[in-house]
Amino acid sequence: MSNPFFKNLGPFSITEILETLNSKKTNLIKDKQVSDIRDLYSSNVNDITFFHSNKYINIAKNTKASFCITSETLKNELPVTCIPIIVENVLVSVSKLTAKFYPDSLNDNFDNTVVDITKTKFKDNVKYGKNVLIGENVSIGNNCSIGHNTIIEKNVSVENNCSIGSNTIIRNTIIKQNTNILDNCVIGKHGFGFFPNKSKNIRYPHIGLVIINENCEIGCGSTIDRGSMSNTEIGRNTFLDNQIHIAHNVKIGENSIIAGQVGIAGSSIIGNNVRIGGQAGISGHLKIGNNVDIAGGSGVIKDISSNTKVMGYPAKNIREFLRENK
Amino acid sequence: MSNPFFKNLGPFSITEILETLNSKKTNLIKDKQVSDIRDLYSSNVNDITFFHSNKYINIAKNTKASFCITSETLKNELPVTCIPIIVENVLVSVSKLTAKFYPDSLNDNFDNTVVDITKTKFKDNVKYGKNVLIGENVSIGNNCSIGHNTIIEKNVSVENNCSIGSNTIIRNTIIKQNTNILDNCVIGKHGFGFFPNKSKNIRYPHIGLVIINENCEIGCGSTIDRGSMSNTEIGRNTFLDNQIHIAHNVKIGENSIIAGQVGIAGSSIIGNNVRIGGQAGISGHLKIGNNVDIAGGSGVIKDISSNTKVMGYPAKNIREFLRENK
Amino acid sequence: MSNPFFKNLGPFSITEILETLNSKKTNLIKDKQVSDIRDLYSSNVNDITFFHSNKYINIAKNTKASFCITSETLKNELPVTCIPIIVENVLVSVSKLTAKFYPDSLNDNFDNTVVDITKTKFKDNVKYGKNVLIGENVSIGNNCSIGHNTIIEKNVSVENNCSIGSNTIIRNTIIKQNTNILDNCVIGKHGFGFFPNKSKNIRYPHIGLVIINENCEIGCGSTIDRGSMSNTEIGRNTFLDNQIHIAHNVKIGENSIIAGQVGIAGSSIIGNNVRIGGQAGISGHLKIGNNVDIAGGSGVIKDISSNTKVMGYPAKNIREFLRENK
Repeated sequence: MSNPFFKNLGPFSITEILETLNSKKTNLIKDKQVSDIRDLYSSNVNDITFFHSNKYINIAKNTKASFCITSETLKNELPVTCIPIIVENVLVSVSKLTAKFYPDSLNDNFDNTVVDITKTKFKDNVKYGKNVLIGENVSIGNNCSIGHNTIIEKNVSVENNCSIGSNTIIRNTIIKQNTNILDNCVIGKHGFGFFPNKSKNIRYPHIGLVIINENCEIGCGSTIDRGSMSNTEIGRNTFLDNQIHIAHNVKIGENSIIAGQVGIAGSSIIGNNVRIGGQAGISGHLKIGNNVDIAGGSGVIKDISSNTKVMGYPAKNIREFLRENK
Repeated sequence: MSNPFFKNLGPFSITEILETLNSKKTNLIKDKQVSDIRDLYSSNVNDITFFHSNKYINIAKNTKASFCITSETLKNELPVTCIPIIVENVLVSVSKLTAKFYPDSLNDNFDNTVVDITKTKFKDNVKYGKNVLIGENVSIGNNCSIGHNTIIEKNVSVENNCSIGSNTIIRNTIIKQNTNILDNCVIGKHGFGFFPNKSKNIRYPHIGLVIINENCEIGCGSTIDRGSMSNTEIGRNTFLDNQIHIAHNVKIGENSIIAGQVGIAGSSIIGNNVRIGGQAGISGHLKIGNNVDIAGGSGVIKDISSNTKVMGYPAKNIREFLRENK
Repeated sequence: MSNPFFKNLGPFSITEILETLNSKKTNLIKDKQVSDIRDLYSSNVNDITFFHSNKYINIAKNTKASFCITSETLKNELPVTCIPIIVENVLVSVSKLTAKFYPDSLNDNFDNTVVDITKTKFKDNVKYGKNVLIGENVSIGNNCSIGHNTIIEKNVSVENNCSIGSNTIIRNTIIKQNTNILDNCVIGKHGFGFFPNKSKNIRYPHIGLVIINENCEIGCGSTIDRGSMSNTEIGRNTFLDNQIHIAHNVKIGENSIIAGQVGIAGSSIIGNNVRIGGQAGISGHLKIGNNVDIAGGSGVIKDISSNTKVMGYPAKNIREFLRENK
């Protein structure tokens, strides 16, 4: 799938890309057009990808990308069809290059394309409150309602039978049918992703979306950040309570229930039928299986296998935790 | 007290109610008009109530209700004056029946009855900001102020000398005198109460209110959900800091102090003179006594008796906790 | 530095001040004009200060203030140049007297001086959204943007190249250049500071500001309260994620990174290059050194020295914590 919301300014020649990265062109590299920048898994032939940690060796071995930004120590894991581009700092280089392909994905200032909904084609088929603003590239299905002071910024698709509350801000988001977003939410802003740098931290682009599937509910005051290279996604019929924070690239499965003030850090993947109690926190880059119960207030710092109940900080088997804490 | 905000469409005949619940009418049940649906404690003669857990046996034995939705295993605990209606799933049946009596209590879309305050009778005796919206069935006392972009939706009573901040949304709420609500709050929306269901979770109605008593303060970015069958209530002179979440049916006593980012899960009852430190969490359906100190960051998972100081997760006596964690 | 935002109604004669405090004038006290009320450290000759805890003995011994509100037990620690004013409750007296010098600092109702930005001088050099409101005594530099529905209340200075999101409320705040404030924030409101009192808690004045230095980012839904007697300050190039709460008088150093849903209680001081994981909490009045890592979910209840990594609740050395919690 090509990116529906962020315009790809490519292709660029590999020569031009190497110049952008201040990287030398070797004889191994023949000039060629590069279509897109993608992660190891979703790259295709003629794309450039990146590989910065040995956690991803298995995916790297099978990438279809034609080029890969990586380091001396990792380059030998790539297939012969993928030419390594060696750089000093892989992630900083990815940041630079994504900004070249997708310059719009870097800057998250307010959307100045919005107009009052009464001046749009939606005025006749949407039930709307006072002072509702709608940006460019927005679609809204039938039988939807949008509350007062809500801002649907650019790049939002809302399917049929959705309700969006008041004082909510949404951009770069796909909302499937029968989903309710409550009041005071901020959905689709860039995540807390940047490279620390003493004079001024360097933000990296976020070209991912937020996808909220059918039949979901998102509680008041929640924030869901869009992904950097992949999407942030909430599975169908998953309900989130108030004041929840979902960081960039997180994926949550179907039929899950997440209580108030829970926080899920970047890139963690949560299964189906998961129940998470209030104020629990899940660290970044973890994998939580299906049918998992995480007790309220728990702090999860490692993967959890399916069909498990955990509690505590660090979260462990709930029976063990309760036995130790009688 | 009859429900001041949600219109009761009853009475309905018990025959009609049994049809709604797909429950068979036995010879034991004579046709009769049923006035209201209430919890075990507040029901009167001619009301229907519900009894789904043996935690409530003592209240069930003394209910005044004429009918009770319950299960085979619990029905014998009811007094002879109360006829059991046996159903497969008590709470789903309660949900269906409450929706029949109070259809308005199910749907929490934005209030489309609001108008700009300058077009209401309040324009002369309230000090108000820009873009303030007021819904139906709202009363506001003397010497009140309402900040910019704030939406007082339907069914709100604000007594004298109250101050409400900017960007705040309130519905189904009674605010007693001298109380301050700060900015970006959402007060009176339905709680996170529904019956999990694989194809689409079933929301149950929330016919309770939020009641905030005299001299309170509610900090910025806080959410207080209204009750389902009973009210959510904050006692007089209780102060809440920023980003606090109070779930449905919670009751907090007088003179209590609750620091930032605290969360209190559904139906817990907190006493008077309670102090709760920042980020502490209290599980649902608990009873916290008077004069209790809960240290910041604690996770309370069982009842706490009066005059106790607790800390930790799970919260225990503070001296014990500190001795174990030197 | 004189207070840039709150008008000092002084000087007042010490005789008048003693009357305000219901304190007797002794022969030791000659009539004299008192310029200002300040803390022990920042007071100058002709100021009045206060001293209520032996934690501050070393600062008290060197205060330059001419008068000091204190208790019988502490008065002998003051230098001979500082005349003690003995009261029953030091902090309640400070509250009364600060309200006399700075009456504007007590009441945080919405700012009724605001006007639409299109009616101000900023309409030509600021990029602004719909429904932006600007209060009195506001300055905004070049190349700034302000999102929809945002309210810049009175007493705000925004330097060049800043971006402020939508639905955000700011007052009593200095924002240095190249700083981004995202959506739905509330910055500069009074802190959760008051004296508990059975009939109605007594709020004390907050004459401090919020200062956010160069190159910072403040995430969506965050709240930063202004200081009571000193300022709340965020150091340059420090980034805050979403839903963070920073209480009054907190100071955070440079180049720090604070993840989502962190809370920092009043008057704590955080060093430079500090990294705080999601949902961690820091109690009030603590000192955290430089180059400290605090793991997500930790609860910090004592000072942490520089170059340390901590985890747990209460937070301890991370290796010790992980060894004990394998």
